[in-house]
Amino acid sequence: MIRHTVSFSLVHPAGSDAEADFLSTGARTLSAIPGVEDFVVSRQVSPKSDHAFQFAMSFADQAAYDAYDAHPDHRGFVASRWAAEVSSFQELDLVPLAPG
Amino acid sequence: MIRHTVSFSLVHPAGSDAEADFLSTGARTLSAIPGVEDFVVSRQVSPKSDHAFQFAMSFADQAAYDAYDAHPDHRGFVASRWAAEVSSFQELDLVPLAPG
Repeated sequence: MIRHTVSFSLVHPAGSDAEADFLSTGARTLSAIPGVEDFVVSRQVSPKSDHAFQFAMSFADQAAYDAYDAHPDHRGFVASRWAAEVSSFQELDLVPLAPG
Repeated sequence: MIRHTVSFSLVHPAGSDAEADFLSTGARTLSAIPGVEDFVVSRQVSPKSDHAFQFAMSFADQAAYDAYDAHPDHRGFVASRWAAEVSSFQELDLVPLAPG
């Protein structure tokens, strides 16, 4: 299992319609792509980061992740929305370790 | 619910006993503090981040988070291990948004 997360900030004013539309369109578009599991949109509230939101999703394996990455709906969202509306971001790919 | 995550890198060589000891001691110490739920240690594998690991945990509310932050076992781990063995880190605090 791979948990893919990206924290980000938007160019839009906090609380704006444009902000809400980006979040809802992103969630609807990305969560519908085959292989995406447990899609969560969160507000990032720590003052130790300047990011305001996070998208998080899980993939069963690298093949599912690769298929998502290459999917035209993912590529389209990145090209049409992400590139213009996100001011900064950080991706992480997390593979849980067995307790030990 | 607040999901608290910290991604980090260690000063220790990858695969070393010191690395394994830091991860296991951190997990054992922090996950036992009252109010800590769903503690997960992950390997961070994206080349888009230079962090190698992540600790993640959930708190029911801000009061539980504050109690963890002030707990002597947390403060002790930070002072005795984290400060000397972690080379870089980034904290996030994530509050899931209702689907919409």
